[in-house]
Amino acid sequence: MSRSAPYDRDTAIDAAMALFWQKGFHATSLKDLEAKLAMKPGSIYAAFTSKEKLYLLALERYFAQSRSGFREQVARAASPLEAMADHLRAYARLAPNDMSRQACMLTKTLIDTRATDPTIAAMTRDYLTAIQNEFAAVFAAAKEAGELADDADPDRLARRFQANVTALRLALHQGMAAKDFAQLSEDMAAEIENLRVKLA
Amino acid sequence: MSRSAPYDRDTAIDAAMALFWQKGFHATSLKDLEAKLAMKPGSIYAAFTSKEKLYLLALERYFAQSRSGFREQVARAASPLEAMADHLRAYARLAPNDMSRQACMLTKTLIDTRATDPTIAAMTRDYLTAIQNEFAAVFAAAKEAGELADDADPDRLARRFQANVTALRLALHQGMAAKDFAQLSEDMAAEIENLRVKLA
Repeated sequence: MSRSAPYDRDTAIDAAMALFWQKGFHATSLKDLEAKLAMKPGSIYAAFTSKEKLYLLALERYFAQSRSGFREQVARAASPLEAMADHLRAYARLAPNDMSRQACMLTKTLIDTRATDPTIAAMTRDYLTAIQNEFAAVFAAAKEAGELADDADPDRLARRFQANVTALRLALHQGMAAKDFAQLSEDMAAEIENLRVKLA
Repeated sequence: MSRSAPYDRDTAIDAAMALFWQKGFHATSLKDLEAKLAMKPGSIYAAFTSKEKLYLLALERYFAQSRSGFREQVARAASPLEAMADHLRAYARLAPNDMSRQACMLTKTLIDTRATDPTIAAMTRDYLTAIQNEFAAVFAAAKEAGELADDADPDRLARRFQANVTALRLALHQGMAAKDFAQLSEDMAAEIENLRVKLA
């Protein structure tokens, strides 16, 4: 793969993301990468330097896609608070073969690398914080719009929300029955809607 | 290690549990096990057959310890509902060097092995279900004792509770600041206490 082939590079990073997300950093072998990327070992190293560097590129891609997907959901929603409730409910509507029916790649990465690869773990923490800040910004917008009480704390709500999202995605990963999963996501969405300031 | 040394075998399984819990199934090498268990490779295989079998023994130990720890908490608590709220708050009181300041070994295992080791993943799902059933039994006792409304669904509450515990432990694993973590566990404990039927 030459530097003049950005399309191929992009495709290769997407393929690496899907593979790493599924198998994890440690369980993914160079042989797995060769097959998935349809590249020879020499080309993989020439293009990406190391398995760790390729992993970091795949993780960056995952983060960027997650963030832009969330921002699109927010832009389409009836209000900031509705966007947050909808985000939780959306997990119950994922297609059977959707890649997001596994735990969040950031969660998986932190579990897989905290004790073994500080560089990847530190990058993952930064992305998790950035996502939490995205959530906090929407709660702040909900407060600004009068949907939340004046004493609502967007950062606190964002931490609670991120905990809920993480847990939901682990329940999907675990293979929770569809009916139970819909109920769980609905319980979490209802908590968000209960935050809404009642109009007098 | 001979079969006539149950104490050593027990100690070895404890040591394997600590190592596997920290590093994960895939990232733990035979060399790591040799060092941690202070056993030669031949002795490890003679005693435990394979890395997978030793992992399953370590996981069983983790499950048994988690369950008995939870049952002791319940036995000490003022009431079933208080036991559940206390369980969430207890994570904010863990000692700085407590092994439980990392994600639950069952969560870590499912993430590490779902795509790569079906035997371990299936065993993990069974343990997670068994823990969920422990939680449901305590909610059922709370209902029986009149702490919960007549229409409370112990299984539904147990799924929500397990999601909260999983998320709390991932927040610890991620290294959330102590103040924020205490607030998050308190928010979850308050949700449990809000379920309490108000006396007229």
